[in-house]
Amino acid sequence: MAENTATLTEPVAFATHPSRYVHWRLEIEPPLARLVMDVQEERPLRPGYPLKLNSYDLGVDIELADAVQRLRFEHPEVRALVVTSGKDRVFCSGANIYMLGSSTHAFKVNFCKFTNETRLALEDVSRHSGLGVLAAVNGPCAGGGYELALACDEILLVDDASSAVSLPEVPLLAVLPGTGGLTRVTDKRKVRRDLADVFSSLGEGVKGKRAVQWRLVDETVPLSRFAARVAERAQALAARSPARSGPGVALPDLAGVRSERGLEHRYVSLAVEDGGRVATLTVRGPAEGEPAGAAAMRARGAELWALRAFRELDDVLLDLRFNRPEVGVVVLRTQGDGARVLAADAALLAAAGDDWFASEVLHHLKRVLKRLDLTARSFLAVIDAGSCFAGSLFELALAADRSYMLAGDDDGPRIALSALNRGPLPMSNGLSRLATRFLGTPEAAAAVADGEALAAEEALERGLVTFAPDDIDWEDEVRLAIEERASISPDALTGMEANLRFAGPETMETKIFGRLSAWQNWIFQRPNAVGERGALTCYGTPNKPQFDIRRT
Amino acid sequence: MAENTATLTEPVAFATHPSRYVHWRLEIEPPLARLVMDVQEERPLRPGYPLKLNSYDLGVDIELADAVQRLRFEHPEVRALVVTSGKDRVFCSGANIYMLGSSTHAFKVNFCKFTNETRLALEDVSRHSGLGVLAAVNGPCAGGGYELALACDEILLVDDASSAVSLPEVPLLAVLPGTGGLTRVTDKRKVRRDLADVFSSLGEGVKGKRAVQWRLVDETVPLSRFAARVAERAQALAARSPARSGPGVALPDLAGVRSERGLEHRYVSLAVEDGGRVATLTVRGPAEGEPAGAAAMRARGAELWALRAFRELDDVLLDLRFNRPEVGVVVLRTQGDGARVLAADAALLAAAGDDWFASEVLHHLKRVLKRLDLTARSFLAVIDAGSCFAGSLFELALAADRSYMLAGDDDGPRIALSALNRGPLPMSNGLSRLATRFLGTPEAAAAVADGEALAAEEALERGLVTFAPDDIDWEDEVRLAIEERASISPDALTGMEANLRFAGPETMETKIFGRLSAWQNWIFQRPNAVGERGALTCYGTPNKPQFDIRRT
Repeated sequence: MAENTATLTEPVAFATHPSRYVHWRLEIEPPLARLVMDVQEERPLRPGYPLKLNSYDLGVDIELADAVQRLRFEHPEVRALVVTSGKDRVFCSGANIYMLGSSTHAFKVNFCKFTNETRLALEDVSRHSGLGVLAAVNGPCAGGGYELALACDEILLVDDASSAVSLPEVPLLAVLPGTGGLTRVTDKRKVRRDLADVFSSLGEGVKGKRAVQWRLVDETVPLSRFAARVAERAQALAARSPARSGPGVALPDLAGVRSERGLEHRYVSLAVEDGGRVATLTVRGPAEGEPAGAAAMRARGAELWALRAFRELDDVLLDLRFNRPEVGVVVLRTQGDGARVLAADAALLAAAGDDWFASEVLHHLKRVLKRLDLTARSFLAVIDAGSCFAGSLFELALAADRSYMLAGDDDGPRIALSALNRGPLPMSNGLSRLATRFLGTPEAAAAVADGEALAAEEALERGLVTFAPDDIDWEDEVRLAIEERASISPDALTGMEANLRFAGPETMETKIFGRLSAWQNWIFQRPNAVGERGALTCYGTPNKPQFDIRRT
Repeated sequence: MAENTATLTEPVAFATHPSRYVHWRLEIEPPLARLVMDVQEERPLRPGYPLKLNSYDLGVDIELADAVQRLRFEHPEVRALVVTSGKDRVFCSGANIYMLGSSTHAFKVNFCKFTNETRLALEDVSRHSGLGVLAAVNGPCAGGGYELALACDEILLVDDASSAVSLPEVPLLAVLPGTGGLTRVTDKRKVRRDLADVFSSLGEGVKGKRAVQWRLVDETVPLSRFAARVAERAQALAARSPARSGPGVALPDLAGVRSERGLEHRYVSLAVEDGGRVATLTVRGPAEGEPAGAAAMRARGAELWALRAFRELDDVLLDLRFNRPEVGVVVLRTQGDGARVLAADAALLAAAGDDWFASEVLHHLKRVLKRLDLTARSFLAVIDAGSCFAGSLFELALAADRSYMLAGDDDGPRIALSALNRGPLPMSNGLSRLATRFLGTPEAAAAVADGEALAAEEALERGLVTFAPDDIDWEDEVRLAIEERASISPDALTGMEANLRFAGPETMETKIFGRLSAWQNWIFQRPNAVGERGALTCYGTPNKPQFDIRRT
C-alpha cells in the first residue's frame, strides 16, 4: 500500500458543529446525553478507505472532540453521557486500518496524538465537570473502540455470542494499542499484567464473565436488559454529578482566515516566514476591560477573551501539527496590556469557584496549554516591547523551550505572574509549569509575588526567562537562536523536547504520551509493521505478513 | 557507512577481571578507590573503529560494570570511588560514534540498555552500599562521558580553557543523549528545563561558573588545586559511608560452557530449541542445605547458591540479548526443592540487616531481576513437577509475561512466597513484583502467607499464576502458547511488554528505559540520523548531513 500524501496537501479543518456531524449523533435528554457513533462508511476524511464497521479516522475523531467540548459549554443541563453505537452488530472496530496503512509516518503519529488528547478530554470532563461517562458497548468492541471505552468511567458490555472487547493490534497488525490502550489497561483499570498480556495478544478478545473477572469491563448484561441497565447506570452517574445552572454558552465557529502564509484569528495569528521553517505565533491580550463577576462573564459568553483567545490558539496548534509539517520553530509573541491580562485572570479565578462557566474556561485554558506542551515543534518565547506575557499568557513563556526578553530602559517589556501560574493550569505531569521549572529550587517560585512587574534583568535573575540581551545584541541573538534551532535535525529535537519538557513525576497521561506513544512511534517505523510485507501493510490483502524474527 | 554485522556472528563475552582490563585501571587505596579510564584506542571490541579520545564501546563498558560489581563484593575496605581519566587532555568523549554508526539497530539498542544499566549500577552502589562516587572531570567531558559523570554523586570539573561538560548529540549527531543524559539533567540534577534545552542543543557545552550556576556540575576547581580538592571531597564521601568489615568475597569466573545450542552453568542452563526461536532457561535450586548465619555465608562466599545462581542468570540474560537475537520466546523453568529455596531466602534476609555481604547478595538478586524485566524477549514461566518456584525463584514467575502451572494430584507442583517477594527485590518502578501485579487488588497479596505451599488450583485462585491446565490439556496448552507467541511480530511484542511490565509509578529509572530509550530507539531508525545522509552516518566524513525538515 503506497503512502498517501493527501494529508500533506489538503489542509485538515477542525471546526465542526453537531448540525454538521457526519459520523456521530449527539442526543440531549437532560440530565443525560447520548453520543451515538454511526460512522458513514463512504465519507472518510480523504478518499481511499471506506470506514467499515464503525471504524474511525481523524474526521470521526474531530467530531467526537467537538461534541465533548460542546457538552461542557453548551449543555450544563447534561450530567451524564452515554457513548454507544448506532450500528446493529458492532460498537466500534477502532481506527481504520487502511487509513493507517496508507498514511505517512508523521500523519500516523499526529493522528494518534489527537485521538489520545480526545480520550483524555473525556476523562477530564468526568473529573472536572463532574459529567459521568458510560460506555454502552452494544456490540463487538475492538482496538481503538475498546480504547474509547477505556476512557469512559464505566463500561457495560452486552452479553451475547459475539460481543467481546479486544485489543488485537499486536497479533493482527504488529502495532500497539497506542491510544492509551496498554496504559489504561494496567494503570486505570489495573488489570493484572499477565492477564493484560494474554488479552493484548489475543485477536478475538474476551467476553462475558471473564471480561468482568479480568477487570476489562464493569458489567456484562444480556441484550434483553441492556437498554434498561444502561439507563439505570447513566441515571446513577447523573445523580452523583452536581447540578449546573443554565443556560449554556454557545461556541460559534471561529472563522479564522487560513492561507499558505498563515492563519488569522481575532486574538491569535500565525505567520509563516519566507522559507517556511519558522513561524510567528502571536497572541493578543484583551482589547478592552474584560467583564468581572460570573454574570457578566456569562453574558460575554464565547466572546470572553480568555475563552476565545485560547480556542483560537488551539486551532492554530492543530493547524501547525497537521497542515504545516515544515514549520520547525515557532516564535511565541504576545501583544497588549499585561495589566488587562492579570485582571482577566483574577476575574476568572474569582468566579471559577462557584460558577461552572468560569471553571470551564479555566479547564479549557489548561487543555490548550497541554496541547502546546505536546506539540512537537520548538517554541521560543520572544518578550519585547508591547508584549503582555503576564499570568495566563506567561504560561506561553513557561511552556516554551526557551525565552528571550529584551533588556533595556524603563520602557522595556515587563512580565508578571498571577495565581493562574501556580496550580490551576497543570501540565500533564500534574505540576504547574512554574513548579516543573523550579523542581530544583522551589523557593524561586515563591520569591516572586503575583502581579509584580519584572523587567528583563529581574526576570533573568529570578530564573523566569532564559536570556535577557540588551538592544545592542537583541536582534542578532534572537535571529541566531532561531537559525540554529532550525538547522538541527527535526527528529532529534522532537525526542529532546519530549524528554526535557516533562521533568518530575509521571502520570497515566504522561505515560501515554511518553512511554506508550514513543514505543508506538518506534513500531510505526519497523518493517515488521510498515514494510512491504509488514502486518499493517498486508492487512486486508491476500499477502501474509513476513516477519524478521530477530528481537531488538 | 555500512552496517557491520560482526556483533551478530561473534558472541560477546561478559566475563572479565581487573587483571585483564584493557581500558580501565582499578586502583585501591583504602578507604578510596580510583577507576581510571584510559581507553586503548587500538583495542575496540570489534575491528573498524579506533577508540579515540577516551571514547567507549561495549568492551569498555563491560569492564566498568565488572569493576563496580567487584568493588561491592571484593573491596569492603573501599568507601568512596573516584571516577577519572588517565588521559592528558580529555575526560571522556562518550560512546564511539563510528561504532554506533556501523552497528545494527538491534546492537545500538542493546548497547544503550547495557550502558544504562551500568550507570544505574553506579547509583545503586552509592545508595545501597554507601559507596560515594565522585566524578573527577579532569578534561573535556562530552556526551556519554558527561552521562557517566551524571551517574556519580558529585561532579568536580577542572576549570581551564578547554574543559567543558557537553551533550552534543542533538546538534552534532541528530540522536539523543540516551544513556540517561536528558533524564538525569532534568530529574536528578534538576537543571531548569530551558537551560537544559540550551545545554543539550549546544555542541560546545558549558564550563566554569556557568556550569555550576546551571547545576550541571557541583564545583569547578583550577588545575593547580584539582587533585587536592578531589582527594578532599573523596575523603568526605568516604567519611559519610558506614564501615564494612573485611575480608571481601572474590568473584571467580563462572566458566560456563557456551555453544550455538545453549549455555551451561552450574545452576543455570539455557537450551535453544530446534529452529532457534524458543529457548528454555532453567534455574536449579540449592543442591544441599545452604549455610545460615553471616559467618557461614561469608565462608561459602561466591559459591553461595543465591549469589552464584543469579550471577549465572545474569550471564545468560546478556548472552540472550547480545548473542541470540533470534530467540523470541524464553521458557522459564526451575528445578529443585522449594523448601531449600525458602530456607536460603530466610537465611539471606536474616543476615542482610547486619552483614554487608548478605545485603550485597540481595541487591545483586535485585539487579539481575531488573535486567530480566528489561530484557526484550517474551518470558513464559512453566511450573511443573520437580520445579521450585518459591520465594526468590518465584520472582521469575512474577517477572514472566505469563505463567502456566500444572494442575493435578497431590504430587503436582507447588509454589510459595517468601519475604523476598514483598519488598527487598523491587522493580525499576520502586514496587515489588507482587505489588505491581496486584495494583488493583492489594489485598490479594496480603492473603497469601509466606511459606504456604500452593497447588495449581489455589495459585490460580489467588491470582499468582495465569493458567493452570490439568495434565490432559497441559502439553497442548503450553505448546500452543509458545507457538502463538513466536508467531507475533517481535517488535510489537517488545513494545507491548515494555508497557505492560511497568504498571504503576514511574521513577527516574523507568523514565530512562521507557520515555528516553523509546524516543532514542525511534530516532535510531530515522533517516535524519541513520540514513545515507543522516548525521550519524555522515559524522567524520566529508559529507554534510541533509535533513528532511518536516517535523513529526
